[in-house]
Amino acid sequence: MRIARFSIDGNVAFGVVEGDASTEGGPVLDIIKGHPFAEFERSGQKIPLSKVRLLPPVLPNKVVAVARNYAEHAAELGNELPEGPVTFFKPSTAVIGPGDPIAYPSFSEEVHHEAELAVVIGRMCREVPRERVKDVILGYTCANDVTARDVQRREKQWARAKGFDTSCPLGPWVETELDPSDLGIMCTVNGEQRQLGRTAEMVHSIEDLIVNITEAMTLLPGDVVLTGTPAGVGPLNVGDEVAVTIEGIGTLTNKVIKRG
Amino acid sequence: MRIARFSIDGNVAFGVVEGDASTEGGPVLDIIKGHPFAEFERSGQKIPLSKVRLLPPVLPNKVVAVARNYAEHAAELGNELPEGPVTFFKPSTAVIGPGDPIAYPSFSEEVHHEAELAVVIGRMCREVPRERVKDVILGYTCANDVTARDVQRREKQWARAKGFDTSCPLGPWVETELDPSDLGIMCTVNGEQRQLGRTAEMVHSIEDLIVNITEAMTLLPGDVVLTGTPAGVGPLNVGDEVAVTIEGIGTLTNKVIKRG
Repeated sequence: MRIARFSIDGNVAFGVVEGDASTEGGPVLDIIKGHPFAEFERSGQKIPLSKVRLLPPVLPNKVVAVARNYAEHAAELGNELPEGPVTFFKPSTAVIGPGDPIAYPSFSEEVHHEAELAVVIGRMCREVPRERVKDVILGYTCANDVTARDVQRREKQWARAKGFDTSCPLGPWVETELDPSDLGIMCTVNGEQRQLGRTAEMVHSIEDLIVNITEAMTLLPGDVVLTGTPAGVGPLNVGDEVAVTIEGIGTLTNKVIKRG
Repeated sequence: MRIARFSIDGNVAFGVVEGDASTEGGPVLDIIKGHPFAEFERSGQKIPLSKVRLLPPVLPNKVVAVARNYAEHAAELGNELPEGPVTFFKPSTAVIGPGDPIAYPSFSEEVHHEAELAVVIGRMCREVPRERVKDVILGYTCANDVTARDVQRREKQWARAKGFDTSCPLGPWVETELDPSDLGIMCTVNGEQRQLGRTAEMVHSIEDLIVNITEAMTLLPGDVVLTGTPAGVGPLNVGDEVAVTIEGIGTLTNKVIKRG
């Protein structure tokens, strides 16, 4: 099931996506009564997807991300593979939705795309045992861990390099029925392929990551765990259109604009 | 003015602290109508401070902290002084209030106290010019940037080392009328002095920090900026009582317990 968050006429709601581009009339959203973090009913009230503005599919309290979780990507930046997961935060103020602009930050001259599989947490949890990890996951979406690479090199901790406003596009929706263990993950810029990998290449699995993170901290419904990026990261420039596509989920597209 | 957040009989409210330990009958809270992030009135309804449970004085969306902002402290950990501020996040799930227990994390054997002056943001802001910094600050409180030092050394980014549950005690209240430029800051463990410094020793001033952070990201009302810790950091053990005292604000006390 694909759950989108959207606005129409100033109202915000969640809806289940029915159909796809091949459906006559295009896909529709069946509006959810309530929210997807508890049992919910579909209202039966349907709106064409083309009529709404998609929003970030969740509003995370925090985004916990992992660095160097694909060996080839670690190597391309000249980094050794760390022993355990290297985790950092992206703040809620960095989150944008599908179609929202990435505003090129004023303090960087080298902003990179990083296509990532995002895990959306479904329930409050801490110290999650490995065999219970699947129970705390609502589903999966696409993410772009947009990074000011020059600032990342210069500043030892990455709050500014990876936490600036608009640095965390998420979307287009949450796919709740998906085996995430071996999905194709791709990033294109202006239609040209830049990153290509498979989630099977992750050094630390989703189970490893959730166990490691919740050993330390509570995750809340809507929190997001980013699982690392495959090789092929590279620059984004003002005017570029960057798209993250993950097999079984869909495509998250954002344009890069000058920060206004 | 000192603004506390508290609960009594299951209700949560903000109140203005009137009087102090020398006042006959002890200090009282004058309950605020509304919240302190907009113009507010005092209700005139007063409750003895001794009758309430103080809560974290604000509920930050994010806490942005700075490393190595006192030269002597950087030196004691064998670190060089960075050129610009080194900033990192502590998540909202790490925040606890005065008197709340610090739960010793299971994945560390070396947890340290770090007494810090906390700046509480009063309004949504980004790209704040230096001369406007004072306008976005609601006030100041005490913080303890509790750190799993062994994990910090091992893991290149500090999400777990500085982001674990209970690692961000804040309180006891927000002091809104204070010149923060040269305040005594002290940390005691079981009554014994461990850290002692003055905010005048900061490498990057509060103005520098807010300019630097908001160049990258939006700060929201209630967000907190931690300004670094003076020399003298050291271990906390289960059973210890750690107290952060800042001149003109008050004392934030927390006990260390075994994580349950």
